[in-house]
Amino acid sequence: MKLYTWLSAPNPRRALIFVAEKAIDIDIEEASDPDNPGQLSKRYCEKYPHRRVPLLELDDGDWIAEAAAVCKYLEALYPDNPLFGRNAKEAALIEMWDRLAEWEGLMAVSEVFRNTHRLFVGRGLAGYDIQIPQISELAERGKLRLGRFFNKIDERLDQNEYLAGDIFSFADITALCAIDFSLSRKLIIPENCCNVKRWYQAVSERPSAIG
Amino acid sequence: MKLYTWLSAPNPRRALIFVAEKAIDIDIEEASDPDNPGQLSKRYCEKYPHRRVPLLELDDGDWIAEAAAVCKYLEALYPDNPLFGRNAKEAALIEMWDRLAEWEGLMAVSEVFRNTHRLFVGRGLAGYDIQIPQISELAERGKLRLGRFFNKIDERLDQNEYLAGDIFSFADITALCAIDFSLSRKLIIPENCCNVKRWYQAVSERPSAIG
Repeated sequence: MKLYTWLSAPNPRRALIFVAEKAIDIDIEEASDPDNPGQLSKRYCEKYPHRRVPLLELDDGDWIAEAAAVCKYLEALYPDNPLFGRNAKEAALIEMWDRLAEWEGLMAVSEVFRNTHRLFVGRGLAGYDIQIPQISELAERGKLRLGRFFNKIDERLDQNEYLAGDIFSFADITALCAIDFSLSRKLIIPENCCNVKRWYQAVSERPSAIG
Repeated sequence: MKLYTWLSAPNPRRALIFVAEKAIDIDIEEASDPDNPGQLSKRYCEKYPHRRVPLLELDDGDWIAEAAAVCKYLEALYPDNPLFGRNAKEAALIEMWDRLAEWEGLMAVSEVFRNTHRLFVGRGLAGYDIQIPQISELAERGKLRLGRFFNKIDERLDQNEYLAGDIFSFADITALCAIDFSLSRKLIIPENCCNVKRWYQAVSERPSAIG
């Protein structure tokens, strides 16, 4: 098996943190173009038409894309230290919070990043082989969504140590990657979100997050 | 347990088709405002601050949101006739194709719908209690994405009977709901996508899809 990643992008980072948390020994290959690391390599795009990372290449030549699908597959092979839940209800809550962290957090920052960064002109969305124009209003909407995301998880983290409950899970990994991505864009955790700050400090200190 | 839905919206429909496929006997409640069915009821929004449907209310008062999380939880309780895979690899492929159908299909149509329909002025995204302005460029981008989606799944369905492989799965349910939603917006399956048409006719004839 081989895990393809791309620089410091948040979605492959979700897989890298997961692999580190579970101490899975796996081949990791960088998918960027060596001459132009802001692009995926031509070879990668020809091989994997979804043009997104992370991606897991299996020993039989098949492949699995999408961070959550990649990590859930690895969890099935390496069940120790579960990050997708110990029973059906916990698994459902982790899946729900992971999707909310992805949809309301990660996608919101991506909307800001992809629609403003000069290196992503014509590449407003990941995964497309056609021109996707940047939309400045969408970057503004992303900031609005992100503010709501911080407040929403702050309410949740007022009642729970971690996003999906009392154990660290894949949902926390997704939210951490979303927030680090947002900090890299100078979009900071709002002053009043004390629970997010407490949680963020704790999860950032995990060896898997330090990398 | 109770399953909350909302008129003919595609995400709750994913759950309704899943429940019908598996013949699960479950209480279903409409979450719309009886006086204004284009809105979720005030009671629903107060009870479930995520303001999205479907939602599963458990007997202990906890709740699970997000269609995929709701259905996966139900599959754990009712394992017969699995729609999320019979082994780890099948489960990973279903998860991957479900996410691609959601991200590239369902979200693309939603971008068109939410950013053009007169009843959704100020409600450009589901799940927000703040004004989300409509963005006309985003509706155009949604059409572009949708075209790519049809072509991408056509290539896939040239090699496979169903999206994730040789069995009908939750990924097919998501793609079906995305396409029916798109047809309702007069965004039709491109003429050259013969594999999508063959697959669409087959899945549309399933009793669960007829409803």
